[in-house]
Amino acid sequence: MNYQDWVQLELEDLSTSLGFHYTPKEEVAGRLTRLRSGMKNKGIEAFLVVQKMDYYYLSGSTQNGILFVPLEGKPLLMVKREVERARLESPLEEVVELKSIRDLPSLIQDHWGRLPQTLGLELDVLPVNDYFKYESLFPGARFMDTSLIIRDTRKIKSPFEIDLMKMAGEIGRKTYQKGREMLKEGMTEIEFGGLLEAAAKMYGHEGILRVRSLNYEAYSWHVLSGSSGGIVSQSDSPMGGLGLSPAFPVGASRKVMKAHEPILVDFGTCYHGYQADETRMFSIGEMEDKFIDAYKVCQEIHDAVLEETRPGTDCEAIFQHTLQLAEKLGYKNSYLGPPGLQTRFIGHGIGLELNEFPFLSQGHSYPLEEGMTFAIEPKIVFPGEGSVGLENTVVVTQDGYDILTPLEHDILKV
Amino acid sequence: MNYQDWVQLELEDLSTSLGFHYTPKEEVAGRLTRLRSGMKNKGIEAFLVVQKMDYYYLSGSTQNGILFVPLEGKPLLMVKREVERARLESPLEEVVELKSIRDLPSLIQDHWGRLPQTLGLELDVLPVNDYFKYESLFPGARFMDTSLIIRDTRKIKSPFEIDLMKMAGEIGRKTYQKGREMLKEGMTEIEFGGLLEAAAKMYGHEGILRVRSLNYEAYSWHVLSGSSGGIVSQSDSPMGGLGLSPAFPVGASRKVMKAHEPILVDFGTCYHGYQADETRMFSIGEMEDKFIDAYKVCQEIHDAVLEETRPGTDCEAIFQHTLQLAEKLGYKNSYLGPPGLQTRFIGHGIGLELNEFPFLSQGHSYPLEEGMTFAIEPKIVFPGEGSVGLENTVVVTQDGYDILTPLEHDILKV
Repeated sequence: MNYQDWVQLELEDLSTSLGFHYTPKEEVAGRLTRLRSGMKNKGIEAFLVVQKMDYYYLSGSTQNGILFVPLEGKPLLMVKREVERARLESPLEEVVELKSIRDLPSLIQDHWGRLPQTLGLELDVLPVNDYFKYESLFPGARFMDTSLIIRDTRKIKSPFEIDLMKMAGEIGRKTYQKGREMLKEGMTEIEFGGLLEAAAKMYGHEGILRVRSLNYEAYSWHVLSGSSGGIVSQSDSPMGGLGLSPAFPVGASRKVMKAHEPILVDFGTCYHGYQADETRMFSIGEMEDKFIDAYKVCQEIHDAVLEETRPGTDCEAIFQHTLQLAEKLGYKNSYLGPPGLQTRFIGHGIGLELNEFPFLSQGHSYPLEEGMTFAIEPKIVFPGEGSVGLENTVVVTQDGYDILTPLEHDILKV
Repeated sequence: MNYQDWVQLELEDLSTSLGFHYTPKEEVAGRLTRLRSGMKNKGIEAFLVVQKMDYYYLSGSTQNGILFVPLEGKPLLMVKREVERARLESPLEEVVELKSIRDLPSLIQDHWGRLPQTLGLELDVLPVNDYFKYESLFPGARFMDTSLIIRDTRKIKSPFEIDLMKMAGEIGRKTYQKGREMLKEGMTEIEFGGLLEAAAKMYGHEGILRVRSLNYEAYSWHVLSGSSGGIVSQSDSPMGGLGLSPAFPVGASRKVMKAHEPILVDFGTCYHGYQADETRMFSIGEMEDKFIDAYKVCQEIHDAVLEETRPGTDCEAIFQHTLQLAEKLGYKNSYLGPPGLQTRFIGHGIGLELNEFPFLSQGHSYPLEEGMTFAIEPKIVFPGEGSVGLENTVVVTQDGYDILTPLEHDILKV
């Protein structure tokens, strides 16, 4: 059978029967309206969207391509591979094949009647050599950075997006509960991490977590037991763990997990690209008192953040209040990392990426808004001994918050 | 206990007892010598290495940092997080803390006595905003693209690197054999993919596969059964599979695997950052004749590539010969994808990334050299029906090749 015929005849029914939800037309329309308001404010005539999560957000497709969004007129999705699937995935009307990057100007000219004089690009992630190529393809155009505009647009989630994040949270809940059945004394951290990963995939987790960064890599198997939990690494996290090698010195290691140790599991899940981030404590038998006490402090700080979570609260102020609370409770030198290596955030925006706006962090003085989603993650670290933490993903509602990761907070004791 | 003291006292013994191999001093010295010969040819005085795999290769560490490599004088590894671990991981003598990117010029000035006038950067991956920042930090310096120089250096593997790739291949062998025990009729593709992933982690696989690209994402759970194997997607691969959602439309799906279908598993493994790529066919009961015949053709093309694998053979010529062979055997319209969507390579270099030099591909006319490592992957696709393929990772030796993925080629029938 001809491939294109098969896709047109079969792929929609097949994919929806196997759990695909395509982004509705109205959803994309609403996102484009908000994006364009940001573009208009900055005097940007058109936006060439090249980063995968950005064009998924605006087009519904992650096929390999480039999305042209003019301030006025229809967007044009140009697809290198594979255009028939992109036509199915995207509710946009104009989806064409992009055979070569050199065809970009002529496709835009044909579609829009002219070429833009100011052109936005995501300069926070676009590689320099690609930028030079665009400069040569659009001589005379003025290039502007649209990364803050798209990130600002994406920071407010719609009910459609929040439902997908709730599904990710539900996958997380099942995964942690299954973890309680699977954890055994004598397992290595990575063995447990692999089993959690396999369970999560069964429940619908897509396996890949995404971060907006050249070098920062996300992964799910963050299982840190005892002394591993006291090790800092490359990641901007209170503790990174030992990991498996100098090439991957974070997350689960080959360390055998023992009874009474704190076992911290920070396991993100992903559904239709939307992520939920969650941390819980496991223990084999009763955890030592020192860690139980510290975990209660994490719960108290977590709940204090929730109490302030509503539209209008300043993000940096929430972070500073947790510093004060940790100090008052006697954990100044172990809260968010060892002295000299303490991280400076208590929450991070989350959605299609793990480092979205808002940051509940030093230097981020702006108010929470309805529809923002973020993870709250108080953690306490004792070098050489271990660490504890609690993390949930929440959405800011009209007068407070909803929790998107519904699992209970108790230590998961086996 | 003080964190820094703990790391200095405990971390080396702990990590080596848990399987860490640190890069030897002589290994890094040899790599630097070859890199500098490339820099000298291009008149580049110093190279600021920012991409994680590039500075791992040159420093032995993947801690978050930047590596300064002058043409003459000692390299300087500047580490944001975490510098004590970087000192342990790297055999370089000069490893300092980088508190702020603004300190870069003064750290280089202190170390090297002056600032470079020509400065190399990996412009193929460096984001534009970072480039602008470097321009402001080093006013008057001429910036040059060092991406081809570092990729050229990395394309020839040392015995140390080849041993790590052999370990990755051995992990793959065990994983496929375990897969044969785990595969059951009625499992979904993603369930099987998750189980393979968990098994591979048990055997030492690091979980993350790496590609040098803004948008291209690598993953291990590429399990395509029956009709899924006939679906093309965003990836530059003969077939992408259905995947799990429009946000991840590649690899294993929720399709239930049935008896007699071709089940293609393309599962990459990673050990100390070094990757082996491998494809085998599974079947539940006897596979249909059409696919058995096509798989024999893949084996024949695979073996024909091996026969030409030795120093001096032209990479593009190897690819062209496989096109001729596929046509002669009657598979012109299904070899490497459906008509109009056929990929144009039969092999890709592999090491720390999945898209290294050499490419056995159209437009890549250069000779194979001793120490190059690449994956050979003939695949045949029938839209609506399924696909078959065989893939192994090999190293070019003085007079031929060694295979790094030692698993037998027979269909893994259960």
